[in-house]
Amino acid sequence: MEVTNRYVVIKHIIDGAPQESDFELRTEPLTLSIEPGKDEVIVKNLFLSIDPYQLNRMTSQSCFQQATNIAGALNPGEEIDGYGVGRVVASGNPEFKEGDLVSGFLSWAEYSIIKEGTSKFKGAKLNKVETMGFPLSYHAGFLGFSGITAFAGLFEVCKPQKGETVFVSAASGSVGSLVGQYAKLFGCYVVGCAGSQKKVDLLKEKLGFDEAFNYKEEIDLKSALKRYFPSGIDIYFDNVGAEMLEAAIENMNPFGRVAVCGVISEYTNEGKRAALNMVDVIYKRITIQGFLAALEHLQSGKFHVLEDISRGVESIPSAFAGLSR
Amino acid sequence: MEVTNRYVVIKHIIDGAPQESDFELRTEPLTLSIEPGKDEVIVKNLFLSIDPYQLNRMTSQSCFQQATNIAGALNPGEEIDGYGVGRVVASGNPEFKEGDLVSGFLSWAEYSIIKEGTSKFKGAKLNKVETMGFPLSYHAGFLGFSGITAFAGLFEVCKPQKGETVFVSAASGSVGSLVGQYAKLFGCYVVGCAGSQKKVDLLKEKLGFDEAFNYKEEIDLKSALKRYFPSGIDIYFDNVGAEMLEAAIENMNPFGRVAVCGVISEYTNEGKRAALNMVDVIYKRITIQGFLAALEHLQSGKFHVLEDISRGVESIPSAFAGLSR
Repeated sequence: MEVTNRYVVIKHIIDGAPQESDFELRTEPLTLSIEPGKDEVIVKNLFLSIDPYQLNRMTSQSCFQQATNIAGALNPGEEIDGYGVGRVVASGNPEFKEGDLVSGFLSWAEYSIIKEGTSKFKGAKLNKVETMGFPLSYHAGFLGFSGITAFAGLFEVCKPQKGETVFVSAASGSVGSLVGQYAKLFGCYVVGCAGSQKKVDLLKEKLGFDEAFNYKEEIDLKSALKRYFPSGIDIYFDNVGAEMLEAAIENMNPFGRVAVCGVISEYTNEGKRAALNMVDVIYKRITIQGFLAALEHLQSGKFHVLEDISRGVESIPSAFAGLSR
Repeated sequence: MEVTNRYVVIKHIIDGAPQESDFELRTEPLTLSIEPGKDEVIVKNLFLSIDPYQLNRMTSQSCFQQATNIAGALNPGEEIDGYGVGRVVASGNPEFKEGDLVSGFLSWAEYSIIKEGTSKFKGAKLNKVETMGFPLSYHAGFLGFSGITAFAGLFEVCKPQKGETVFVSAASGSVGSLVGQYAKLFGCYVVGCAGSQKKVDLLKEKLGFDEAFNYKEEIDLKSALKRYFPSGIDIYFDNVGAEMLEAAIENMNPFGRVAVCGVISEYTNEGKRAALNMVDVIYKRITIQGFLAALEHLQSGKFHVLEDISRGVESIPSAFAGLSR
């Protein structure tokens, strides 16, 4: 059977915040069968995770050289791969058969053609999905890459102790919302920040954060954090970088830990950087650790999962551009 | 017996690089005996370690609040304490008797009066010194605070592996010179930077560094480090901060470790800060850790010890001011 596969590419290297107009929807004919002897799997994509880090692969390669070592730079016109779940429609690989639910690095497209070892993500592998009663979309986010990132970042990098104070930025995002809930469940005092009153209400009322604030309404982030953490911050889970990271460092307690998971505010503006007070870092013996989720991690639990699902491959550009707003 | 004790104080809160004129030599009569029932020890100071971090105690308290939590802010006219060795001349403490050699936090003076628990350094304690055949001055530096700092910073914070590459800034300083030698002895490739050709020669010819360079002769620190570390830096032992830290981060390998021991260039200029590339920190999964030497550490070994000894309490201001030049 032949179908028309629709897929999304970047038109050009992106500078600054991504716009829908940086992307293009293309089509190509695709035969839904595997030539004999080929080890490929064709997957009908069901849920794709649209994550801010992808922007690093779309900017000029010179400035984010390292990013491209991990996830592979994306050239204009080229297939974009990202984490997702789907259903096998044809397989030349004995491990997978038609109808299997799978997760892994799929294309920003209606169908993905998976060839072992050709993903731009180092170590990427297609895996069978056991739904375990969860909605399938959870396996693209909460039980997928975002969940692993939140879990590993909080527990392995930050090593929380009961009663410690935890600050999460971009706290209503796919990773931040899980970090806050994990930390709360673990017995920490958790404050999140987000960019609208609606998100702040969500954090406090639905996700059980102890406190939350709208960073856009704060004139001085340092004094805002002092207000929410009168006895200091033990752990900062950083999704944004720049001024927020500076303000958190100044409010940290001795032996504080910072997990740097993302720096959204720096992705879209290469010149924007955190100017950290290293004297504070020394005297407070702070550890700042960059990390990427390892694909081997497992996790489980029962959580409120925040999902913002948009339908159709044609909606990817606006969903992606919306992450930076 | 009564003597005239000469001691050094700051005249005022110091801004910027310290000058000799910021200090004043004062005198006061001192009776070299202890009143019955008092738990004090009077020590004739023999060697005092003059360290850059002291500047943090002398600047305006608002900007280095944390520093003063560890080591105590110094007010104009007040006694200055720092690590050193001396000989007990009178003791009301049963643990010490006249003639004992001791190390600990002494005064920038000819004599120190040590009262248990009154040091501004948290956890400071007077200890008896066993010379173990080493010159007594070694116990103020190599076998004292500097040695502990170098040892703990390299082995506990950076966790080197044989064959890894190590970069040390301010490499001819009391801490840097030991870090480089420890790392070399451990089987690492070691490059140091310093501020003169004479120091560079010393690092390569006497201390056995694999390479060394004069940072003042480099137009672009990033490309200088790329030249000395064509396959990247695994460990950076930072004594200076600011641009050097930025350049090191950009040249680090995945899973690189940075021990932030001192940021001399930031002590004298509060506005000067490292603007780190956090995208690099994330994708290279770099750990940046501030630390202070714990007083409990022990160390041993046979090393070239670089000492710059000046004589007499009146020489302290010029020795201290010279550290920032």
